Amino acid sequence: MRIALDMDEVIADVLPAFLDLYATHFGVRLEKEDYWGEKIYRLPGASIIRESLWEKGFFADLPVVEGSQEVVRWLTEHYDVFIVTAAMEFRNSLEDKFDWMQRHFPFLHWKNFVFCGDKSIVQADYMIDDHPFNLEAFHGKGLLFTASHNVSEQRFERVNNWNEVRVFFEEELKRETNTTQFE
Amino acid sequence: MRIALDMDEVIADVLPAFLDLYATHFGVRLEKEDYWGEKIYRLPGASIIRESLWEKGFFADLPVVEGSQEVVRWLTEHYDVFIVTAAMEFRNSLEDKFDWMQRHFPFLHWKNFVFCGDKSIVQADYMIDDHPFNLEAFHGKGLLFTASHNVSEQRFERVNNWNEVRVFFEEELKRETNTTQFE
Repeated sequence: MRIALDMDEVIADVLPAFLDLYATHFGVRLEKEDYWGEKIYRLPGASIIRESLWEKGFFADLPVVEGSQEVVRWLTEHYDVFIVTAAMEFRNSLEDKFDWMQRHFPFLHWKNFVFCGDKSIVQADYMIDDHPFNLEAFHGKGLLFTASHNVSEQRFERVNNWNEVRVFFEEELKRETNTTQFE
Repeated sequence: MRIALDMDEVIADVLPAFLDLYATHFGVRLEKEDYWGEKIYRLPGASIIRESLWEKGFFADLPVVEGSQEVVRWLTEHYDVFIVTAAMEFRNSLEDKFDWMQRHFPFLHWKNFVFCGDKSIVQADYMIDDHPFNLEAFHGKGLLFTASHNVSEQRFERVNNWNEVRVFFEEELKRETNTTQFE
C-alpha cells in the first residue's frame, strides 16, 4: 500500500517563514488569532509576501513539522511512502526542496520523491495533504492535514498533527490484520 | 484522456551528448553500428560517461527529438499531456530540465510537468517511454519509443519516431469517435 505525503505545511513548516516575512514587511508580529482561518499572504495588503516563494532559499531552511520525521520513518516500515509536492509553480524551489528532503528525511530514497504541478497524476492508496483541492481529485483515501487555511473544511477526514496520523494508520493496520485473519 | 510522455530519448535527444562525451574521452566518434542495441555508457570501459549526468548543464542544451514539438502540440488539442521524467536521480538536472521544457515546449503548462524517481506513481491512460521497466509498472496503454538500448524488446507496441506517434493517436481518435457513434 502506498501513501502520498504532501511537503509544505505537512512535513515542512512554512508558517514561521511567512510570519517573519510579515514582520519584516509590516513591522508587526502576527498572533495566531490574526491569521487563523486564512493564509497569511491572503491577509489584506499582504499578497507581496507570496512573491518570496519564487526566491532561491525560501524553502531551504524551513523547520520540520513536529513529529513528522519519527512517524514517517515508522510509516515506511509498513507502507511505500512517497513525498509529493507541487513544486513546479516555483522553479527556484526545486533544488532547495530536494536538498531539504535529503537532509531531514535521509531514510527516504530519491525514488520516492515526486515534484509535480497537478496532483491528480498521482496513484496511491492514501494521500495526506493540507489542500482540499488535492484530495478532491484523489481516488484513494484522503486525509486533510490541519493548516490555518483549511480549518473550516468539512468534507475530509482530518488529522491535526503527526500523532493523529500515527493513530490513524495504527487503526488501519489493525483493521487489515483482522480482515486478513477472517478471510 | 491523459498521456504521460517521457523526456530523455523521447522528446530530449541525449544521444549527441553521449557521442560527444565518448569522443572526448576516447578520441573516437562512434558510428551507429558501434552502439546500436546498447546504451553508450554501457560499452566496454565507457561507464565514466554516465557520471556526466550528475553535472550541471548536461541536460540544458539537448536537442529536441525530431517532430516531437509539432506532434506534442497536436496531442494537446485532444489529450491532457504530461511530461514525466525520472529526474530525481540527478539533483543537478532539476533546473536544467525545467528550463528546457519551458524553452522548447512553452505551450505546456508547468502543471503538466512531473519529476519523479519511480514512474509507477503515475496515473494516466497512455505512457510513451523508452524504458521497458516503466511500461511494465504502468496500468494503461504503454508505447515503447525506440532507442538504441531497447531494440530487442518485444513486449510492447513500438513507435519508432514522432510520425508514428501521431499515426497511433489518429487511429485512437478515430476508434473513439466510432465507438461513441454506435453507443
